[in-house]
Amino acid sequence: MRRTLGAVVALLISVATLGAQNALVLQSDFGTRDGAVASMKGVATGVDPALRIFDLTHQIEPYDIWEAAYRLRQVTSFWPKGTVFVSIVDPGVGTSRLGVVARLRSGQLVVTPDNGTLTLIADEVAEVREIDLARQRLPGSERSHTFHGRDVFAYLGARLAAGRVTFEEVGPSRGTTMVRLAVQVPERRGDVLRGMIAMIDRPYGNLWTNIPAAMLDSAGFTVGDTLRVVITHDGRTVLDTLRAPFVESFGHVAVGRPVTYLNSLLELAVAINQGSFAGKYRIGTGPGWVITVRRRRH
Amino acid sequence: MRRTLGAVVALLISVATLGAQNALVLQSDFGTRDGAVASMKGVATGVDPALRIFDLTHQIEPYDIWEAAYRLRQVTSFWPKGTVFVSIVDPGVGTSRLGVVARLRSGQLVVTPDNGTLTLIADEVAEVREIDLARQRLPGSERSHTFHGRDVFAYLGARLAAGRVTFEEVGPSRGTTMVRLAVQVPERRGDVLRGMIAMIDRPYGNLWTNIPAAMLDSAGFTVGDTLRVVITHDGRTVLDTLRAPFVESFGHVAVGRPVTYLNSLLELAVAINQGSFAGKYRIGTGPGWVITVRRRRH
Amino acid sequence: MRRTLGAVVALLISVATLGAQNALVLQSDFGTRDGAVASMKGVATGVDPALRIFDLTHQIEPYDIWEAAYRLRQVTSFWPKGTVFVSIVDPGVGTSRLGVVARLRSGQLVVTPDNGTLTLIADEVAEVREIDLARQRLPGSERSHTFHGRDVFAYLGARLAAGRVTFEEVGPSRGTTMVRLAVQVPERRGDVLRGMIAMIDRPYGNLWTNIPAAMLDSAGFTVGDTLRVVITHDGRTVLDTLRAPFVESFGHVAVGRPVTYLNSLLELAVAINQGSFAGKYRIGTGPGWVITVRRRRH
Repeated sequence: MRRTLGAVVALLISVATLGAQNALVLQSDFGTRDGAVASMKGVATGVDPALRIFDLTHQIEPYDIWEAAYRLRQVTSFWPKGTVFVSIVDPGVGTSRLGVVARLRSGQLVVTPDNGTLTLIADEVAEVREIDLARQRLPGSERSHTFHGRDVFAYLGARLAAGRVTFEEVGPSRGTTMVRLAVQVPERRGDVLRGMIAMIDRPYGNLWTNIPAAMLDSAGFTVGDTLRVVITHDGRTVLDTLRAPFVESFGHVAVGRPVTYLNSLLELAVAINQGSFAGKYRIGTGPGWVITVRRRRH
Repeated sequence: MRRTLGAVVALLISVATLGAQNALVLQSDFGTRDGAVASMKGVATGVDPALRIFDLTHQIEPYDIWEAAYRLRQVTSFWPKGTVFVSIVDPGVGTSRLGVVARLRSGQLVVTPDNGTLTLIADEVAEVREIDLARQRLPGSERSHTFHGRDVFAYLGARLAAGRVTFEEVGPSRGTTMVRLAVQVPERRGDVLRGMIAMIDRPYGNLWTNIPAAMLDSAGFTVGDTLRVVITHDGRTVLDTLRAPFVESFGHVAVGRPVTYLNSLLELAVAINQGSFAGKYRIGTGPGWVITVRRRRH
Repeated sequence: MRRTLGAVVALLISVATLGAQNALVLQSDFGTRDGAVASMKGVATGVDPALRIFDLTHQIEPYDIWEAAYRLRQVTSFWPKGTVFVSIVDPGVGTSRLGVVARLRSGQLVVTPDNGTLTLIADEVAEVREIDLARQRLPGSERSHTFHGRDVFAYLGARLAAGRVTFEEVGPSRGTTMVRLAVQVPERRGDVLRGMIAMIDRPYGNLWTNIPAAMLDSAGFTVGDTLRVVITHDGRTVLDTLRAPFVESFGHVAVGRPVTYLNSLLELAVAINQGSFAGKYRIGTGPGWVITVRRRRH
């Protein structure tokens, strides 16, 4: 009788954890107009019908690895430990580029082609393992060479999230070796801060820089200051000394007025209240787009 | 032994209800191109990994509170009791506008900035409570002032859906006080019905009015009648006396022909079969767009 | 005591299968900007709050039954047995067109208007049953004639997925009778293969044909060959003898160069590496768009 009860309790525990699997979060440049994303979710559901599957976004600009890197970095810290991210922006699919799984210090995993997608979370990566493509592949997909997202990455991500395979079983370790894209590292010289336009905050058109709150703090910038903003592209001045208040949020200025503020990643951002800053001044993103801010002299 | 079994049964009941939580339904103007929505879902999943999270839409026109109000009103009655809606179209984020939770008579909850988003379900609201921003906030988000969607509304919505906080614990009651947008109330004068163009039914371009089926019934309109339609914008005539049959569905006329019908909310709608009425006649929405219909004299 | 335990075990089994229901996969041309999709998910959640609901896509070009047919065919084989698909591209809603449920040989079900949506999976259909609209309808929706997606198809699909109704109870059998769209059947004459441009692979602009790998195999085409491609539209030549290598994946040629390859459905595809083939040569889809390929003579 006691043994029966023991078995019941063991079964109970397994049932109780059924709903508590790790989330699977998918990102790609596939768009949502066709069946590609649904094929990946079908494969993942086939691995485990109880898997909880979410979308980060599938509207990464086609082939834009930088944007994929930024989106990962934007969201990972808001998901629980154990979450498995699958990111597929993969212009090199079917060539010799590697597929990898990165284990983050947070206990999360990222399944991705090794093409720079990990750049902006590289400091969080504890270990990278190369995917053994011969073993970690949807059975029957051997002749398909253009959709590793479905045949390898989503399939493996689902198996990792469902506990059917461990990180160690993915393939050989590469330590923390990974492809990295160029970045304009933010820096402070006295009261002048320099960084890059890291992203346009769509659909609003706000500029998100990579200058962190801590750097603004150390330079003594505080809410209520007026900042002077200069933006250059590959050394050419695009915006020369715009003055804008440093505020908590857009609504503290009139509609149509410029503002600077800490965005939701606690980095410096520049916007027009209810308007598109990027559209008005034709600002782009990437390491060639450099922003300099200083406090206005009083 | 009986006590052990009692504990097992209690555990069973808690397990059995695991999958039966209230749904969390998210709406915003964030679009689906970036990480904003995924950040909210990550926060919600962190509250409870078994939470069932759905999207209403994230493609509300930026800052368009009217559209947010309409979408909520379009869907709430089709979701079960207990569903928690989170709506974030929030041009005033970070200013003194309130965050609120509305309890509907249906037993559903709506978490939203108090900026008019509740306008079209105001009659269904049993009680509004003001969110105590100091207490109902994602731990660690104190310096983030531009993303209450993630830091306050999604976090609180998830905790409400998961039963971690009750409606009463949200903050002080405001009775049924809430911000409301202007509405052109539908009215009948004899056999003439007047209302507003409340929404364009995208992607088709059909016009949805706020004239209810009951008003058509009381005026004796029946399927098979021919209606005469006039549309004005701020008093100026935009469409002068279009004749269109009142039918059950588009397919009862030829492709390219106009029709009037009851839409899926059982309100009067105007369309071109397989064409865009709004596009052809350049019709917009809001209380300034007035539609008048009468039955054609025979 | 034994009986109590038996009841506990029975309850356990029912709990353990809670999370293992069949997936419900929705497709439509409703777009994701309004509340239509969320209304369907609300109705489905009302049928069973534990139901797992996925999107195939809701961005089918409005009224494009061909695209709906192609998307279904693109994904069904990647979903588990028991999955219930609901497809609503329904220009004839509210007219005499039938609603049907098709049972596939795979054990999957497809709920759809009978308007050609089943064309590209017709060979997989084991039996079609006509939906009895009087019985299989959301209670209270009788006056709504323009949204069978919500009132009939999603509601019935949810009940099928949740096991509340069986396939046999849907309505009378129609054997394998169903509406089919015209198709250009692929054919081989010696070393010349002919088929149709079945789909544009968005957002990339690659052409997907319906010429299967087996036909290329039988004609002796192998990776490394150079293919000669001709495309006609309604008999008029649109692209006259483009030479392109037959490779495993895009990345085997330089950016901007044309390639032919097996797509993820193992059918012949034509692309420009990181460019839009369909855009450059203005190629469309459908049975009027005929592609001919042969191996280049050496």
